[in-house]
Amino acid sequence: MSNTSTPDSSRPDDSTLAFDPARKHPDAGLVFLGRIAIAATACGPTPHNPTEARQRGTSAAIVLDAPYRPGLAGLARHSHVFVLVWLDHSRRDIIAHKPRHLSEPRGVFALRSPLRPNPIGLSVARITAVDVAAGRVEVDALDFRDGTPVIDLKPYRPGIDAIPDALIG
Amino acid sequence: MSNTSTPDSSRPDDSTLAFDPARKHPDAGLVFLGRIAIAATACGPTPHNPTEARQRGTSAAIVLDAPYRPGLAGLARHSHVFVLVWLDHSRRDIIAHKPRHLSEPRGVFALRSPLRPNPIGLSVARITAVDVAAGRVEVDALDFRDGTPVIDLKPYRPGIDAIPDALIG
Repeated sequence: MSNTSTPDSSRPDDSTLAFDPARKHPDAGLVFLGRIAIAATACGPTPHNPTEARQRGTSAAIVLDAPYRPGLAGLARHSHVFVLVWLDHSRRDIIAHKPRHLSEPRGVFALRSPLRPNPIGLSVARITAVDVAAGRVEVDALDFRDGTPVIDLKPYRPGIDAIPDALIG
Repeated sequence: MSNTSTPDSSRPDDSTLAFDPARKHPDAGLVFLGRIAIAATACGPTPHNPTEARQRGTSAAIVLDAPYRPGLAGLARHSHVFVLVWLDHSRRDIIAHKPRHLSEPRGVFALRSPLRPNPIGLSVARITAVDVAAGRVEVDALDFRDGTPVIDLKPYRPGIDAIPDALIG
């Protein structure tokens, strides 16, 4: 998912918007529901994607602020959760970008890079424990920085969300 | 996904926050990138979920505003896309909710209802055509209302996003 893999500065192959969405009058406002907590034992740079996070055994948690904790009731019935975060360190004015592993630029909507007009990060994680009273969801791994703001959680529903034969070019 | 299935008024089994996130000073601002366009032939109420939308043959498109169109370059290489929208008709002050098909309330983070503090809708759609210059992505089906604001698109990557054996309680 490469939610965290990108430098904050652009390179010659990047294309930028004529304006910075971060400085534009917003069309809608988000509230931060809590934060990502990465176990202190998970040293080193942020994993590039969920697979790398999982291989490194970077266990992680989502910790919600008190008002939002009742929203977790019933989540433990699900095995996996979509975690949506706000990648608050990412530039928002880049519209096409050349990742290191590609030979030419791609549009940001064809990439999972954090560089995008609305820097929303999306990962699927396996739930290992839910403590509604503490507002805490333990998961197997997340490719986000410690302290990243959480903006939504949704239960993963394989019937509509799992498309194993999807193709990538 | 039930992105559109919910009435705007709460029922006795709903729990509300002590404040309305829509009236709170936002922690971050979103820009709208474009809109969902549902084919005029797709009559009747908005489908409850992507499966229903697909069965009804409700073809749909994502249409981006001019500045954001270069962001689509390369998306046609992918078969499926995550579509993130802002469900601007949804109440944001409900934290637990009893859907009609359940016997007791669940937290909003255990539901795919549009009722949530940040009303972000998430669906996976199959791409049928991409016109970068026109800013148009045609997809097989979407369970969103015509005109719903689009806030992000991400290519679906089966290696990290498809979890066919995920369980729902």
